[in-house]
Amino acid sequence: MRVDVLTLFPGMLEGFLSESMLGRAREAKLLEINVHNTRDWATDKHRTTDDRPFGGGAGMVMKCEPICAAIEALQSPGCRRIYLTPDGVPFTTAKAEELSKQQHLILLSGHYEGIDQRIRDTVIDEEISIGDYVLTNGTLAAAVVIDALARFIPGVLGEEKSLTSESFTRNLLDFPNYTRPAVYRGLSVPEVLLQGNHGEIEKWRHAQQLEKTAKFRPDLLKKQP
Amino acid sequence: MRVDVLTLFPGMLEGFLSESMLGRAREAKLLEINVHNTRDWATDKHRTTDDRPFGGGAGMVMKCEPICAAIEALQSPGCRRIYLTPDGVPFTTAKAEELSKQQHLILLSGHYEGIDQRIRDTVIDEEISIGDYVLTNGTLAAAVVIDALARFIPGVLGEEKSLTSESFTRNLLDFPNYTRPAVYRGLSVPEVLLQGNHGEIEKWRHAQQLEKTAKFRPDLLKKQP
Repeated sequence: MRVDVLTLFPGMLEGFLSESMLGRAREAKLLEINVHNTRDWATDKHRTTDDRPFGGGAGMVMKCEPICAAIEALQSPGCRRIYLTPDGVPFTTAKAEELSKQQHLILLSGHYEGIDQRIRDTVIDEEISIGDYVLTNGTLAAAVVIDALARFIPGVLGEEKSLTSESFTRNLLDFPNYTRPAVYRGLSVPEVLLQGNHGEIEKWRHAQQLEKTAKFRPDLLKKQP
Repeated sequence: MRVDVLTLFPGMLEGFLSESMLGRAREAKLLEINVHNTRDWATDKHRTTDDRPFGGGAGMVMKCEPICAAIEALQSPGCRRIYLTPDGVPFTTAKAEELSKQQHLILLSGHYEGIDQRIRDTVIDEEISIGDYVLTNGTLAAAVVIDALARFIPGVLGEEKSLTSESFTRNLLDFPNYTRPAVYRGLSVPEVLLQGNHGEIEKWRHAQQLEKTAKFRPDLLKKQP
């Protein structure tokens, strides 16, 4: 799978791309990630990528020409061109899994007040929001999307199984986890986890998931299959 | 404001912390960010930070001792100790603004299948989720929280005003933006934006916000004041 990220701040991703699971996945050629500076497609001598908004208002708007030229240079037949914006459709685990099956993604990070609407209308297939908050620019959002989808690419995670027992695989929050010591500062691990009855453990964990989800995220329970 | 990040992958944040707005904010001493390696608080010779879960299951669970020792070493009176987890309360712009007013935050990034529940029960004040998806670890989530809250620290954003006209300030998506040229590849900027009647422009923008929000995020309209 190939991912092209288009941003004004390519340096923001340096540590992210070389460390942890993602660094290993890139080394193992499971994932090709290229980061491009949008400014490289600006054509005037000041390499301008933004301008004042028509109709007034604070902030600057990213111009059509450099971004459209960049996307047209990078795109391949069938690739998915995604704009990261708080205006987009909320990102989920299901979307991460869907994107992990694509051959080629282009992730566009905006900045300033936004980008010219005509970019969205002509060279963007899909708009994604990683949450209901505003970032200084979309570069971290691109990193989040890459990290979440990489986990679904076979071979990237060490233990395939660890995908299955996590938050959101069934629209439930995770159960409480415990490891050694059995007693820490007077706090004991729940008895059921120490007794080795797997049926009882499953039942306890599922009950904990339901209880926790009802308490903190009742909205998820409505999405139960 | 001081932020301590506790992670197994401190290198992931390197580019993020030095580039863009955040690099400038740190240089201008508006924000002090320290990144710590949780492993530095492990005491055995292999610097172990995780162990197998009680009750069985895939993956590893982060142990109580190193994390509790780290948080107790870093904390200050009145500081907010936050665990980044998909199990947490969804992060929002309102939460970012609230956190921006704190003196001191500790952001704990988990890994593997999760962390021992007793860490959450004893040294964590608050659990935050940046969205309904699972990351390889919480380090990017910590970066997202820092980026979103930094925008509310006076002096960090160039133009104070640009905070006010963005997505979510009134639980509405942003209006479409346009900049020069007035015609790009045959696509014209909406007439109203070119005519300079500010009352009409405001009306058009608000109508666009309502229409876009109704189409893509009807859930936000229910939160209207």
